[in-house]
Amino acid sequence: MNERLQKLSAWMKDQDADVSFISSPDNVFYLSGFYTDPHERLLGLAVFQDEEPFLVCPAMERNDAQNAGWEYEIIGFKDTDNPWEMIQTSIAKRLPKTAQNIAIEKEHLNVERYEELKRIFPDAVQFISAEEKMRALRLIKDESELKALREAAALADYAIEVGASEIQEGKTELEVLAAIEFELKKKGVKQMSFSTMVLTGENAASPHGNPGQTKIKKGDFVLFDLGVVVDRYCSDITRTLAYGEVTEKQKEIYDTVLKAQLAAIEASKPGTACSTVDLAARDVITAAGYGEHFPHRLGHGLGINVHEYPSIMETSPLRLEEGMVFTIEPGIYVPGLAGVRIEDDVHVTASGLEVLTKYPKELQIIR
Amino acid sequence: MNERLQKLSAWMKDQDADVSFISSPDNVFYLSGFYTDPHERLLGLAVFQDEEPFLVCPAMERNDAQNAGWEYEIIGFKDTDNPWEMIQTSIAKRLPKTAQNIAIEKEHLNVERYEELKRIFPDAVQFISAEEKMRALRLIKDESELKALREAAALADYAIEVGASEIQEGKTELEVLAAIEFELKKKGVKQMSFSTMVLTGENAASPHGNPGQTKIKKGDFVLFDLGVVVDRYCSDITRTLAYGEVTEKQKEIYDTVLKAQLAAIEASKPGTACSTVDLAARDVITAAGYGEHFPHRLGHGLGINVHEYPSIMETSPLRLEEGMVFTIEPGIYVPGLAGVRIEDDVHVTASGLEVLTKYPKELQIIR
Repeated sequence: MNERLQKLSAWMKDQDADVSFISSPDNVFYLSGFYTDPHERLLGLAVFQDEEPFLVCPAMERNDAQNAGWEYEIIGFKDTDNPWEMIQTSIAKRLPKTAQNIAIEKEHLNVERYEELKRIFPDAVQFISAEEKMRALRLIKDESELKALREAAALADYAIEVGASEIQEGKTELEVLAAIEFELKKKGVKQMSFSTMVLTGENAASPHGNPGQTKIKKGDFVLFDLGVVVDRYCSDITRTLAYGEVTEKQKEIYDTVLKAQLAAIEASKPGTACSTVDLAARDVITAAGYGEHFPHRLGHGLGINVHEYPSIMETSPLRLEEGMVFTIEPGIYVPGLAGVRIEDDVHVTASGLEVLTKYPKELQIIR
Repeated sequence: MNERLQKLSAWMKDQDADVSFISSPDNVFYLSGFYTDPHERLLGLAVFQDEEPFLVCPAMERNDAQNAGWEYEIIGFKDTDNPWEMIQTSIAKRLPKTAQNIAIEKEHLNVERYEELKRIFPDAVQFISAEEKMRALRLIKDESELKALREAAALADYAIEVGASEIQEGKTELEVLAAIEFELKKKGVKQMSFSTMVLTGENAASPHGNPGQTKIKKGDFVLFDLGVVVDRYCSDITRTLAYGEVTEKQKEIYDTVLKAQLAAIEASKPGTACSTVDLAARDVITAAGYGEHFPHRLGHGLGINVHEYPSIMETSPLRLEEGMVFTIEPGIYVPGLAGVRIEDDVHVTASGLEVLTKYPKELQIIR
């Protein structure tokens, strides 16, 4: 078994868990090397303390799983099969008695599948969460993961560069967005981390606006929030550029966000609590009088999932460790006035941070 | 309350359900008119038999919910709040005694949130599934939904037209894909129904391949599978075009898939069982000797979600009704030889089917 599966099995021994049923595509990929998202169809990876693991996936994906390097049993079910019966049989081959302690992903597994598992394991004493352990495993990135994250960040930088070059009077948000994704696809990008955001004017003043037919005009901020997936690892960058003149008030907001973002970077090194990182930025924004206009956490972990553990927020006592990768993205949103957010992807090193996204952050005014 | 909420409340009276907690973005949108996907953050709509419903969403989306027309209570929580306590308070205001019968989406709600609900409702006698009712509501499309579905289908046709015009010796799958999405974005398309598939040669021979740097060459099939979202409603089309010459065997496979697809369309009208529709196509493929190379169901319901109820498969006894919209998409995948799938979106009318996707289906050979 690979090292990741071994670590999960070792944890299961500590927890006295007979079987882990891992069902989120991200964790299945992390443990098996095989990624698929079969949507409403079942996907699962059953891991044991000592027995060989097995994979459950739609029959038509069996070859893909093997090609991805999965060398253990695969239960490939057709739409007309009942995969739970097949799972029950494969588990019975491995466990002499009914499992009593089952680890599942409580934040992922739905109630229907939970009830199926309860049916398969009628004597189950308890269901415990495997999520905390999976998060702990995924929290610290190894070199192969960092390589993908760096490449994804470099492509995100390139995307902003394209976006900046597209800013022009009268162009719509969607036109700029199309140009960015077109250039990325030409570079071989197959997937964005999430729906690319290009927001201008009023639209940028909502922390979760949606790009549309709004046209860029002089005096507007243009906010880009996007990410690229490389080898299944995500980047996530935000830059806010100005078009034409900016008012003193707009400049004040921009400079406050930038100051906050740099303060959070400065505060981050192994041992710093996530809450301290959040507050380093939040205090700058609050002191400038914009506290109520920064309604979200400072950032989030980044890896296979674009939003993953940990949350960088004022209530998180978790301390930074070497190998963690997360975003730092303070923002100020004043309806009718401006929306500014600046976001980098950062990697905790022995002495501080490696900032993975490198597009400049000083206020850039396109004329 | 709108008609959809009224229907859910009426169903709750029949079921003696005190509260429905709806948490999937699609169903929240269907009932409230407000769409958001807050990822790991909580989203919920609490519906009662007679009391006013309320919405739970991240605080920063409160304005968006109001702008979408939601006129009842909104619990807007910050990342530092515990939304479950806020939910408990809002429910207590409406229900004089603890709820005993709670409707949830068992296929969507995760175990963690299920356990939170069990904590809030310690006396809950049972959790029932609201999913079947939501599916029944969403199964029959009204005129406003059909309008969006028709527009989405027309844009899918246009996408295939662009794709066909891009087929050229040496172009990669991703280059063709980029060109399609670029042209769609210029037409105002904000979202695809799912990751666009452009697959050629060997890649097309897997029913769920992924587009990459494979280059189009003479003698290959090029398979497009894509969809467009219009006003939150999805289309989903597949066409397989040939580039250069095709062999007799390739032509035989293509013609078999087309014959199967037309047979399923011919078989569909109000009263026909979904199983009959599936078998109409499957029998053609089996008779031609390719049964084992058609490993998936014939199609799926289409609407807010690109894969929704019902499944068009050989085990489904559900009968077609006027207003249903689904896909018909038989395929034959022979590794090393060819992959062909032809997919239309169809709407059940009083007398048969309206085929929403209109791009031609006769074998098109690009030279």
